[in-house]
Amino acid sequence: MADSSSDAGGLLRDPARFAREVLEPIRAIVGERGVITDRDQMQPLMVAWRDGWKGRVPLVVQPANTAELAAVVAICHRTRTPIVPQGGNTGLTGASQPHGDDSEIVISTTRMNRIRALDLDNDTITVDAGCVLASIQDAAREAGRLFPLSLGAEGSCQIGGNLSTNAGGVQAVRYGTARNLVAGLEVVLPDGRVWDGLRGLRKDNAGYDLKQIFIGAEGTLGIITGATLKLLPLPEATATAFLATGSPAQAVAWLRRAKAALGETITSCELMERACVEIARKHNSQIQDPLEQAYPWYLLLELAGQGAAEALEARLLPVFEAGLEAEELLDGVIASSAAQAAALWRIREGAPEGQRLEGSSFKHDVSVPISQVDRFIAEANTALSQRFPGIRSFAFGHLGDGNIHFNPIQAEGEPADLWQARLPEVNRIVHDIVSQLGGSITAEHGVGRLRITELQHYKSPIELEMMARLKLCFDPLNLMNPQKVLRSDLLDNLSETV
Amino acid sequence: MADSSSDAGGLLRDPARFAREVLEPIRAIVGERGVITDRDQMQPLMVAWRDGWKGRVPLVVQPANTAELAAVVAICHRTRTPIVPQGGNTGLTGASQPHGDDSEIVISTTRMNRIRALDLDNDTITVDAGCVLASIQDAAREAGRLFPLSLGAEGSCQIGGNLSTNAGGVQAVRYGTARNLVAGLEVVLPDGRVWDGLRGLRKDNAGYDLKQIFIGAEGTLGIITGATLKLLPLPEATATAFLATGSPAQAVAWLRRAKAALGETITSCELMERACVEIARKHNSQIQDPLEQAYPWYLLLELAGQGAAEALEARLLPVFEAGLEAEELLDGVIASSAAQAAALWRIREGAPEGQRLEGSSFKHDVSVPISQVDRFIAEANTALSQRFPGIRSFAFGHLGDGNIHFNPIQAEGEPADLWQARLPEVNRIVHDIVSQLGGSITAEHGVGRLRITELQHYKSPIELEMMARLKLCFDPLNLMNPQKVLRSDLLDNLSETV
Repeated sequence: MADSSSDAGGLLRDPARFAREVLEPIRAIVGERGVITDRDQMQPLMVAWRDGWKGRVPLVVQPANTAELAAVVAICHRTRTPIVPQGGNTGLTGASQPHGDDSEIVISTTRMNRIRALDLDNDTITVDAGCVLASIQDAAREAGRLFPLSLGAEGSCQIGGNLSTNAGGVQAVRYGTARNLVAGLEVVLPDGRVWDGLRGLRKDNAGYDLKQIFIGAEGTLGIITGATLKLLPLPEATATAFLATGSPAQAVAWLRRAKAALGETITSCELMERACVEIARKHNSQIQDPLEQAYPWYLLLELAGQGAAEALEARLLPVFEAGLEAEELLDGVIASSAAQAAALWRIREGAPEGQRLEGSSFKHDVSVPISQVDRFIAEANTALSQRFPGIRSFAFGHLGDGNIHFNPIQAEGEPADLWQARLPEVNRIVHDIVSQLGGSITAEHGVGRLRITELQHYKSPIELEMMARLKLCFDPLNLMNPQKVLRSDLLDNLSETV
Repeated sequence: MADSSSDAGGLLRDPARFAREVLEPIRAIVGERGVITDRDQMQPLMVAWRDGWKGRVPLVVQPANTAELAAVVAICHRTRTPIVPQGGNTGLTGASQPHGDDSEIVISTTRMNRIRALDLDNDTITVDAGCVLASIQDAAREAGRLFPLSLGAEGSCQIGGNLSTNAGGVQAVRYGTARNLVAGLEVVLPDGRVWDGLRGLRKDNAGYDLKQIFIGAEGTLGIITGATLKLLPLPEATATAFLATGSPAQAVAWLRRAKAALGETITSCELMERACVEIARKHNSQIQDPLEQAYPWYLLLELAGQGAAEALEARLLPVFEAGLEAEELLDGVIASSAAQAAALWRIREGAPEGQRLEGSSFKHDVSVPISQVDRFIAEANTALSQRFPGIRSFAFGHLGDGNIHFNPIQAEGEPADLWQARLPEVNRIVHDIVSQLGGSITAEHGVGRLRITELQHYKSPIELEMMARLKLCFDPLNLMNPQKVLRSDLLDNLSETV
């Protein structure tokens, strides 16, 4: 087994050789349009939009198609040049941000944005990795189909990045995460060969299901260049409700009732606490509180299905009333128009934006079994308050998946450096509770750079070893997105023993 | 990297050393109840129920729990003893059948049949790998939930085997294959260590999704010993229809219409040709033709959902009528009682049984994009008829997944040896067409021993290499179910170059 770090990036420290052996051969493949070497021009790709990860690379490559991208990766492999794959650069963990030391190049899928094929009898669409998520949703909708992956960044994120992070979003309770929506995949391997796994099949047990390995691998095992995605029936009607409840436990009890009565029509089930509504309103005057009185917690529920909207509402109403009767719910409103439904969604969408404007917050993207959501939030708040009296936190997220975004926020007027110094301890408190409840320290955003140390802290040694083995199996030179997901020292330790 | 074949099974050729170093240490762990060495007593586990694969081993081990199983695997690892993991022994490819040369031992999960936990708020059930599928379905149903995996062998197959083959079955069109139903997994690795991945989470992006690697790996990478499975709302009502159609193309056109109108209520959509109905009736006098007249093709459709059965039927009726109007359908009946629905299902279930009684048939378990089902069946029939005039074939399967069981059958009175000699050529004709249409040579049954050579013929060299790398990554000594899925010579070739 090759040493995972020997020589990697060596050429990047020798500008003349880099130009001769990396840059010029790549330029010969992708042309002038495909290379960016100007630091100012590449600057927008070097910064994470939310978290300030900064990168610095001598070269950004934007191949026009899979063949070009594969040839570029082959050059990187030959010259031991580390690669950061980048899609829409909307991630929340720094996974697509290069490090700041000119030790890597970026390969971007931005120019690869063709919809390759649409098969309506098979309910599949085949796309380039650089297609923006919303453009795939649109293409599906125009064909009378639904591509259900839906998340805040859908107007700029790219499907290759969505698949590489196994994105979740607001409809995962019904349709699953990105992984569930993939029929086939095309991947450029770390040595520059192309694996064509673009099969439009819902059942295929002919050998190991290799696509699963690359989905959610955050570009550390290869670069996803194309995908065949599953389409679903486009719902004819939706019903949206904003429901007040006394606690996450009551919300869970009502969700259990709702699932029994409404089945898969439940498309979204978002939980948020009162503070989220207040902060959303504080920073966006267009957001209204739809209920006359304040309640401690809320559910934003969306149903979708075939047939008339009235039929959906007629099914929801008795479940809502039964919830009131059982005191699982305290109040609520069912949207009577598309405009009202959109207004309800603006509350949910305004929650993270309001938090961003309110101050610096520590983001936690955790999941626990749905049965443990109430306990997680209560224990995390108690533990944080004991350690940091007066600390505020915001809890919201995808209750139907047990995925809670739990964000302690800087007190008003608290000095930034004092607050930032608390991060490790806050993380330890929150993630210890998650771990004790059988949860995950990252439900949908992934590991990237943000959680690489936390991951190493919480994963069992055997699981870290299995991950490292898998990494070395496909990328023995550790050229693909190094120091993301897995720390390179883990690979070095393992490669000495293999 | 260790040589994948050196010494493996060496002890099995030396009975005294085998007894001393393998059998007795294992007996000390699992006790008398956990070992079978008597050839007569183990005989039922040595034979495949349908296809006559025969095995011969000196030892069958039946551990009582994961700890015992792990300790047994550790002994096998230390002594380089190859292992065949076995569940309910209901597979259709010989994957759980040992070879016939005393070169392996069998480790069976039969005694590991506890339901470990049920979490109703989280909609998960955690089970031992040896739980019989029907017992999990029953436990879910008693709790008011659905575990939707459903297939012919459900009364005796074990969930560990279902997951290891990524079983499909008759409800995959709605609920996906076994893979989609897994939240967490516990696996004993080839060196005897236990990987505890039993998380009850619907979203978990903390590192590589390792469970995906073991699902569908047919026991070649480790032994699944436990699983946390997703439960779904138990449908309150079903509607079952038997629909006549002129061709698979018309069936596909109607299915497209039905999906748009009925969404995820479509739980099964089984296609069969007239000959399947006739052969089912010929061999089972209880099976009736529910329509007055014969038609070339049929669909067996099942809808399920919450609410009243009348509401489901009311939604189905206009779609049925529109299908008649558009000449996608020719006739049909909607079951008016549970008994009538069961009678319709007996036709579908009688098709494989009737074929078995009719003579020796060559089983093909293929999938193609749904849009190519008609073309596949037409081209396969034409090509086979040209090469073997008068040949009969039976096509049936899961239209909603593009999964067709296409079974040419021995002509009446044809000598068995003459027929058997045709198998390689028949396979080549059928699988060439599947391959040209972007399909899979095994949609749901897996590779096992039956399709190991065909797999090697049709997979690209790069995909075979990726599979071999993955195998060597987790099982470098090739001790887990050797000569299944991947031929060992592929591993030898790769391990020389790594």
